[in-house]
Parts: sequence; structure tokens; C-alpha cells
Amino acid sequence: MSQDKILIVGAGAIGSFYGALLAKAGADVSVVCRSDFNTVKKQGYFINSNTLGNWTFTPTQIIKTAAEYRHQADYIILCTKITEQTDRVRMIQDAVNPSTCIVFIQNGVEIEQELLDAFPNNEIISGLAFICCNRLKPGVIHHLAYGKLTLGSLNKFEHSSNKTQHLSNLINLAGIESIITEQIISSRWLKCLWNASFNPLSVLSDGLSTQDILSTQEALVRTIMQEVSTIAQACGHPLPEDSIVINIKNTYAMPPYKTSMLLDYENNQAMETEAILGNTVRAAKREKVFTPTLNTLYALMKLKELKIKQDS
Amino acid sequence: MSQDKILIVGAGAIGSFYGALLAKAGADVSVVCRSDFNTVKKQGYFINSNTLGNWTFTPTQIIKTAAEYRHQADYIILCTKITEQTDRVRMIQDAVNPSTCIVFIQNGVEIEQELLDAFPNNEIISGLAFICCNRLKPGVIHHLAYGKLTLGSLNKFEHSSNKTQHLSNLINLAGIESIITEQIISSRWLKCLWNASFNPLSVLSDGLSTQDILSTQEALVRTIMQEVSTIAQACGHPLPEDSIVINIKNTYAMPPYKTSMLLDYENNQAMETEAILGNTVRAAKREKVFTPTLNTLYALMKLKELKIKQDS
Repeated sequence: MSQDKILIVGAGAIGSFYGALLAKAGADVSVVCRSDFNTVKKQGYFINSNTLGNWTFTPTQIIKTAAEYRHQADYIILCTKITEQTDRVRMIQDAVNPSTCIVFIQNGVEIEQELLDAFPNNEIISGLAFICCNRLKPGVIHHLAYGKLTLGSLNKFEHSSNKTQHLSNLINLAGIESIITEQIISSRWLKCLWNASFNPLSVLSDGLSTQDILSTQEALVRTIMQEVSTIAQACGHPLPEDSIVINIKNTYAMPPYKTSMLLDYENNQAMETEAILGNTVRAAKREKVFTPTLNTLYALMKLKELKIKQDS
Repeated sequence: MSQDKILIVGAGAIGSFYGALLAKAGADVSVVCRSDFNTVKKQGYFINSNTLGNWTFTPTQIIKTAAEYRHQADYIILCTKITEQTDRVRMIQDAVNPSTCIVFIQNGVEIEQELLDAFPNNEIISGLAFICCNRLKPGVIHHLAYGKLTLGSLNKFEHSSNKTQHLSNLINLAGIESIITEQIISSRWLKCLWNASFNPLSVLSDGLSTQDILSTQEALVRTIMQEVSTIAQACGHPLPEDSIVINIKNTYAMPPYKTSMLLDYENNQAMETEAILGNTVRAAKREKVFTPTLNTLYALMKLKELKIKQDS
């Protein structure tokens, strides 16, 4: 088999870590990278992993836009944040060819359709990363723990499962667990159960850790999770019955943790409010599910964002 | 009629403004004043009113505790904030005699019982101030607008109406409207309709004005107001049907305004979360009214207060 040509679009912590794993597994990996371009061009990425050790990842091509990519991409892996400024289609379209498999490892629910509509003839894979990974400075990625990548193909082309399976194999080969699921949309809702709870609560409290939130307002967390679970069910993607219990238990077991939206908030970066919370309440509205708690959190996040905008 | 002996306890903006009005109307007014004691002792209060002009209010006695009061108080007017640190009974008890009428001009709902229990033989008057008034610095009070004081006696002693009427007359005499109502508890809930909405929203948004909150999240404001209205009804104090419509309309007509809890938040002062929001959700729980939005706001305020405590 020829070497896989992979283009990572959005090479922050997540994108460069999985890109580095794929390169380690033998793929030809390039990156579209904007803010850290000069540093990465000069020295590549230093990956500092608590579980896999340290190594340098030198992408084949380091480019600023997908249009500059000189190969035929077998996979484009989209790893940007999804904010109101993100045009995911535009970010990748110039590198998409008929045989390109498009993968997105991104936060949020109901973020599939945009890509399915724009690229109706390409295989599209939805990916969920369960990982603790930070960009310490330009070109330096610290992988603290976890990393499991769940993948699921969204359309049923010939070789669909092959493409997904192959990508999963490469990640496993590099030493990080990757699994394939037929229920990727349910899995996304399951991740949202946690994200839609702890992300807004950590931001609206101005920075409490997951531990402090849970130990003082567990009832609120459960209420939010129950609302998300009800929406998922109404959307035809019911979650396992014990999802809430397990999420609560696991969060108590985690070390105190700063959510991704909190990190963005603290770093004056745009937050993924719409992908995580906005899409959730819009799904609820569409499915006529009553979600007063999520509605309140969403409205408060919009107020908070308005204030940030006023102050900037 | 002999000169009324009035003791103001908690001589911040509200207390010193109404104290100054009562002195203007001929009463003998003293103040218990803690933080601004030295300045006030030296120079009294400068009252700078947009509607009534400027004058100096020199209290008869300026003392640090009610125990130091050397007169028999006809009225004790309690004007402190109500926070978790506030012991209202202890603040006034040493100056209460059998004929003292106790007045409280304070924010919050269901704050009556504590005083009724502690002073079962005294007349107790609940007061609501609709006023825009700030303490610019120690001893300097700026009265921007409004000022209407609504009074209602909570118990039916002989001369009850006389005492209330007399106090109301003094305020009117000084040039500020004061009315008496038989529905003071409903009036308090009506005020809470606004307070329980805009106070937490202004704090949780980190400082948006009432205008910005209302013009971007009117639906949320209406939902909160509806929940408060339902609680008031369940408590036996139904609000006029058009309360929400009128509150929304009036708030649009107001200049952009910082709520009292927001001012406290910005000045690192304790907020009246329990009196305004905590008592509201506890009343809802007791009356079995479903108030998911208020519950969420209250939980978020507790998270925010926890973070403030961690940071202090």
C-alpha cells in the first residue's frame, strides 16, 4: 500500500498531536497552520507526551491554506475549533478531490450536515477525541493523558469501512487507542452531555474547576445532563441509561479540570458556544423538547459573549 | 406633637437619603453608621439631589451601634443590605423599646418573619424604595432620580395606620412621594420580578446594562419574570396581570442602568443573592412551583460567589 497522504487542517493541540501520531505510524502528514506557521516551519512540532514519550513531528508540507497542498489528499482531517468565524467548507475545499476522505475531530453536535451538503460525493468521518492535550507555546504540544479517538463514517460508500478502519489502525499503531462505532451520532451526543454541562458552568462561574462545580451544584449538572439526554433521544440517538450516572462518577474521579471553553475564555479566544450549546438548544426546539436549563445557560453565554465583545 | 425620634441603621446611600429627608421634614434623626463614621462625624452628609437640590444633613447622634442611642426611638429604620453576614435583629435590638416602630427599607422577599419573630410586640413596617441613589464617597450622597417610598404595616396594632401614615407624611413633606399599601407583600414580590431578573443577569454577564440584557435576551427576562409571578401567586400574593408587560416596557424606557448586585460585584462587596434570589427559589420549592430558570440562576450565582471566595 502506498503511503497515505494526510492533510491536517487546524494544527493546534489536537490536530498536531493526531498528525504526529499518524506520521509516527508511517503516513505522509502535512499541516495547514496559521498562527504558529513561522515556528513550525522552522522546527516542526515538539510532542511531549506523558504516555508516549517525546518526539519531533516534522510535517511534509507546512502551508497556510489548503489550496497550497501539492498532493492528492487521501484524508483531510479538520481539527479547528468551530466558532462563528469558522467556515469549515472553505477551509478545506481546495484540497478535496474525489477520493479524499474528510474527517472532522471537532466539538459540538449536529455539525455533520454542513460537510455532507458541501461534499456529497466524499466519504465523511466524524471523530471524537477524548484527550487531555495542550499547546504550551507555538510548536510545542503537551499530551497529558488519554487520547482515545472514536471514529464513525457518516455515509455508506464502497470502502467506507475500509477508510475508517485504516485510519483507526494507524492511530492504534502509533500507540493510542482508536475505535470505530456505528453510533457516532449518539457518541457525539454522549460527549455533549458532559460538554454542554461543564463548559458553560465553568465559564459562567468565571473559572471554577469541574470538581468545584460538581461538588457544590451536582443537582444542576444532573438537570442539564438529563435535558441533553432527552434531546438526544428525541433526535433518534438515545443514550445508554446509565450515561448520567457514569459521567458524574467519572468527573468526580478526574483531577480538577479546566474545560476547553474556559481555556478559550481565559485566553480571550472565541468559545465554541454555538457548536456545543447553540446547536443543542436548536435541536431541542426543533424536536419540541422543553429544556429550560439549557436555554438559560445558552442565553447567559450569549450575554457573556456580548460583554466580552463590548470590552474588546 | 413632639419631634419624632428616628434612628437610621445602615446609613449608606438609601439610609442617609431618607434620613436626610426626614430631618428636612422636622424629625430628630440619628444614624448608626460604621464604615463612614469618621467622615460623617466631622461633616455630616452632603446630599446632592438632582430633583431636590443640595443640602447638608447633620444627624443628631452619629453612633457605631444601636446600643449607643440615647433617645427613645419612635422609629428605627433599617436600611442595610441583607447578606449572609447581616444579623438584622442584633443590629437594632438594643435601641428597640416597646413603642418603637421598626421599619425596614431593604431588598428581597420573605424577609419579614425574622423581625416579626424577634419583636412580636412592635409595629413593623415594610418599605420599598424605588430610587436611583449612589454614595459617591464617604458622607456624599448623589440622588439621581425617583425616590418613591412604598410603606405597609405588617401587623395590626392600635395606631398601626397612624404610625405608617405619619412616616409617609414626613417623606411627602420633604418633597419625595410616599404611599401606603395594604398589599406590601405583593408589592415586594412585584419589585422582586425586576430584581430577580436583572440583578443576576447583570452579574452573570459580568456587567451588561439592563438595556443590553433586555434588548438581546428579552425572552429569558420574560421567562424569569413569569416564574417569579407564579411563585407570588402560589404564596397568596398575586401580581397584577400586566406586571411583566409594564416592567419590560419601563426597563426599555430607563437609561442603561447598573443593578445593585452588579455594583456590589464590581466593588467586591457581598451581594444580596440570598435575599433576592435564594428566598425566591426557596418559596418556589415550598409552594411546589416549578422554576427551572430561577433555579439555574441561583445555582450559577452560588458558583460565581464560590469563585469570588476562592480568589479573595
